[in-house]
Amino acid sequence: MLPPVQQQSTPAHAVSPKYMSTPTGYVMVLRQGDNVLYELEQLAVNEKIPSASFSGFGFVHPTFGFWNAEKKDYDPKSMRDTEMASMTGSIAWKDDKPALHVHGVVTDKNFNAFGGHILALEVGTGSVEITITVHKKRLEREVDQTTGAAVLRL
Amino acid sequence: MLPPVQQQSTPAHAVSPKYMSTPTGYVMVLRQGDNVLYELEQLAVNEKIPSASFSGFGFVHPTFGFWNAEKKDYDPKSMRDTEMASMTGSIAWKDDKPALHVHGVVTDKNFNAFGGHILALEVGTGSVEITITVHKKRLEREVDQTTGAAVLRL
Amino acid sequence: MLPPVQQQSTPAHAVSPKYMSTPTGYVMVLRQGDNVLYELEQLAVNEKIPSASFSGFGFVHPTFGFWNAEKKDYDPKSMRDTEMASMTGSIAWKDDKPALHVHGVVTDKNFNAFGGHILALEVGTGSVEITITVHKKRLEREVDQTTGAAVLRL
Repeated sequence: MLPPVQQQSTPAHAVSPKYMSTPTGYVMVLRQGDNVLYELEQLAVNEKIPSASFSGFGFVHPTFGFWNAEKKDYDPKSMRDTEMASMTGSIAWKDDKPALHVHGVVTDKNFNAFGGHILALEVGTGSVEITITVHKKRLEREVDQTTGAAVLRL
Repeated sequence: MLPPVQQQSTPAHAVSPKYMSTPTGYVMVLRQGDNVLYELEQLAVNEKIPSASFSGFGFVHPTFGFWNAEKKDYDPKSMRDTEMASMTGSIAWKDDKPALHVHGVVTDKNFNAFGGHILALEVGTGSVEITITVHKKRLEREVDQTTGAAVLRL
Repeated sequence: MLPPVQQQSTPAHAVSPKYMSTPTGYVMVLRQGDNVLYELEQLAVNEKIPSASFSGFGFVHPTFGFWNAEKKDYDPKSMRDTEMASMTGSIAWKDDKPALHVHGVVTDKNFNAFGGHILALEVGTGSVEITITVHKKRLEREVDQTTGAAVLRL
């Protein structure tokens, strides 16, 4: 245990950046309370990422959504204090704004697994590590007229 | 909603390619009705991929198989209309044909998770995005005499 | 079936290396009985990996742990004979030793999914394939004073 004074004067999260560049893109580390989707959007804007794929894991409060074709909206489910066992997604653009598409699997204290399309994601008591692989071509999402889904256009 | 005439004359999926190259390999985007394993095999053949790792996600109709050592065959399970929350796999070769090995986790409308070894995979009402990282060495799969499993030989 | 004499004289696993280098890092293939976390630590030491992200899949005997904040220790759960449907993790350093952080999702013979933070992982009757993406900067893990979690410091 470090003495309290040292905790106060140099909290680790105050001096550690949220991401760093790598040979293939970026590594992002987020901490308790961070909004994962917002931080990824900020990365896309700040670093002018044309398009990217990413994977991640950590400890989270997730909100999933399953598409309800009748309602034409997502049926949501929020959970608290889960391990993000796997997160997979991509960064593209729509109307000049970053457009994320993210899926994930979380597990609870009984090790049971849940998941799906991620609508919102907050870091819990721990961290989230994300590895981003950047591509050169700017990609846009567009609505597929057949299914109504926003699809990545190559 | 776009007028029907425009949908007919320029359907988005008719002019968008199924994959593009990236600094580390390829990104593939598949649409409703596409056979995911077939498209990955076609990519391997067309682009002469020596070996590769990939990850993906999307909306799918999967068939999983769990190896039954007594029967020496897979016990299969097919599902419909699931989110592919995570897909992980590799491309190698066997007898001069592409040999895939793919695992995945899917989730249903209640956000419960299922998964395992993927025997077949069709894109559902949406898309599947796959990021492929290509390696330089041609890799072969061979049967491990101890376990009977087809193992990637480095 | 090959004759027994050939199995004895040239077992495939005796001549195949555990990993190979790739343009973005390494591919590791482990076999029945291998200790996955130990082999990743050995890779980190032997190849002087500054930091890395990895993903993998295979057939495993896993031990998961869910953090119990009251006990300040993990509540563990061990399973046998499961498909590793998704494994995601990172390699960093702590006190000059490799420090792994690994999460995973496994599935049983009924295709039900379980998972979380991985405490131990042995390869079952099959193999485990892992793709490692290496970064240039040496990263350390340090204890976050707020949550008590070991967090990757960028």
